[in-house]
Amino acid sequence: MRILLIGASGTIGSAVRKELEARHEVISAGRNGADVKVDITSTDSIEAMYQTVGKVDAVISATGSTYFGSLLKLTPENNDISIQGKLKGQINLVLLGLNHVHDQGSFTLTTGIIMDDPIVGGASSAMAGGAIRAFVKAAAIEMPRGIRINNVSPTVLEEAMQTYGDYFPGYEPVPASRVAQAYRKSVEGAQTGQTFTVY
Amino acid sequence: MRILLIGASGTIGSAVRKELEARHEVISAGRNGADVKVDITSTDSIEAMYQTVGKVDAVISATGSTYFGSLLKLTPENNDISIQGKLKGQINLVLLGLNHVHDQGSFTLTTGIIMDDPIVGGASSAMAGGAIRAFVKAAAIEMPRGIRINNVSPTVLEEAMQTYGDYFPGYEPVPASRVAQAYRKSVEGAQTGQTFTVY
Ligand SMILES: NC(=O)c1ccc[n+]([C@@H]2O[C@H](COP(=O)([O-])OP(=O)(O)OC[C@H]3O[C@@H](n4cnc5c(N)ncnc54)[C@H](OP(=O)(O)O)[C@@H]3O)[C@@H](O)[C@H]2O)c1
Ligand SMILES: NC(=O)c1ccc[n+]([C@@H]2O[C@H](COP(=O)([O-])OP(=O)(O)OC[C@H]3O[C@@H](n4cnc5c(N)ncnc54)[C@H](OP(=O)(O)O)[C@@H]3O)[C@@H](O)[C@H]2O)c1
Repeated sequence: MRILLIGASGTIGSAVRKELEARHEVISAGRNGADVKVDITSTDSIEAMYQTVGKVDAVISATGSTYFGSLLKLTPENNDISIQGKLKGQINLVLLGLNHVHDQGSFTLTTGIIMDDPIVGGASSAMAGGAIRAFVKAAAIEMPRGIRINNVSPTVLEEAMQTYGDYFPGYEPVPASRVAQAYRKSVEGAQTGQTFTVY
Repeated sequence: MRILLIGASGTIGSAVRKELEARHEVISAGRNGADVKVDITSTDSIEAMYQTVGKVDAVISATGSTYFGSLLKLTPENNDISIQGKLKGQINLVLLGLNHVHDQGSFTLTTGIIMDDPIVGGASSAMAGGAIRAFVKAAAIEMPRGIRINNVSPTVLEEAMQTYGDYFPGYEPVPASRVAQAYRKSVEGAQTGQTFTVY
């Protein structure tokens, strides 16, 4: 398959890339140092990316910037960071990408455990994840040409514990290689409308 | 209690009002013909509403405009109708309202069945509902001064079947009076972080 992987240089993206590139052609996308440049907060940039890349069999988003911080400091403005970076960014990859995905292709988006099992500081990120999960479930019943859509919801990664560990007391981290399997299941399997949790 | 009810003139809002005004002071809010004027798509308007109303014990949002239409016609632009009208609108009622709610007060927001049991044309609305549900669950663990937050997720209402019935084939409608009980549970009870489904 020809797979477009947005966020390929990230903690999750690099594990997904490693897992998939043995069997597939993986085109990396991101703001820096990728095969194709894209900023998912801009619809123009998403459209330019699809024009450059041409048709693919699968689109994977392993990205999504969110605002972390106390609810008491959450403002409409910093909540917009999550809306632009994780929620709209990923949904627009689908809305603008439908015509660039082959019949029977797939979209795989990224959510995260805090929509199910919240942490202090995570309300904005949880919101974005919950939006993506519900969108995926609903959009799946209307996807044209056999195209599928799923999302992967990882718990905190072992590889991210040094950065985020303090936010996740008592959460059992998982290796990125395990998380990558869920993306593989979404791309190479036949399920649609699913949230693949790796908790 | 002193209760601020946004969307008081709507199908759900008028049933909630009827249920609560026997025991409480209900202040209605909306764009037209309410005690207080507010457009929840504007943060300035929300702030002005809270300034006018002063402190309350409960804030109920029984509003939230969304885009309905085929996924193939869903664009980033019309998806924004749901993001502004239902998702950000309701979350901003919380973020900007925290200081206007008494200790042990509550927020009750509105979602809807299609985030769980999707219909054709409902992906954008489902997205907004999923965002609210996850936000509520996560925000609940950080609410100050014993303030609670829940959301009510109704299925289609009997009173709305003439307008929306064709979108909901095989969905069992419920009377608005039953839905109003879920809002009562949220306001008068002690639970927090919950999604009260009325399916
Ligand atoms: N790490 C975890 O433990 C964990 C757990 C659960 C869920 N998640 C979720 O998984 C997703 C990825 O997390 P991660 O830890 O792998 O992130 P990361 O290491 O920070 O990597 C993010 C990737 O996305 C790209 N990116 C960032 N902003 C972008 C934008 N606006 N447009 C296009 N590409 C962009 C980055 O590359 P450039 O900077 O070059 O653009 C990078 O490749 C996030 O949604 C996160 O919430 C992570
Ligand atoms: N009806 C159903 O069967 C059903 C089922 C499940 C979920 N829901 C959800 O429940 C919520 C309310 O539905 P409904 O059927 O009761 O709606 P509705 O009858 O159309 O009433 C909407 C109410 O909200 C107010 N409103 C609309 N836009 C507003 C804005 N920007 N700012 C402030 N107030 C605004 C309206 O008054 P003004 O026009 O004067 O502002 C009205 O009072 C929606 O989120 C809907 O998705 C409805």
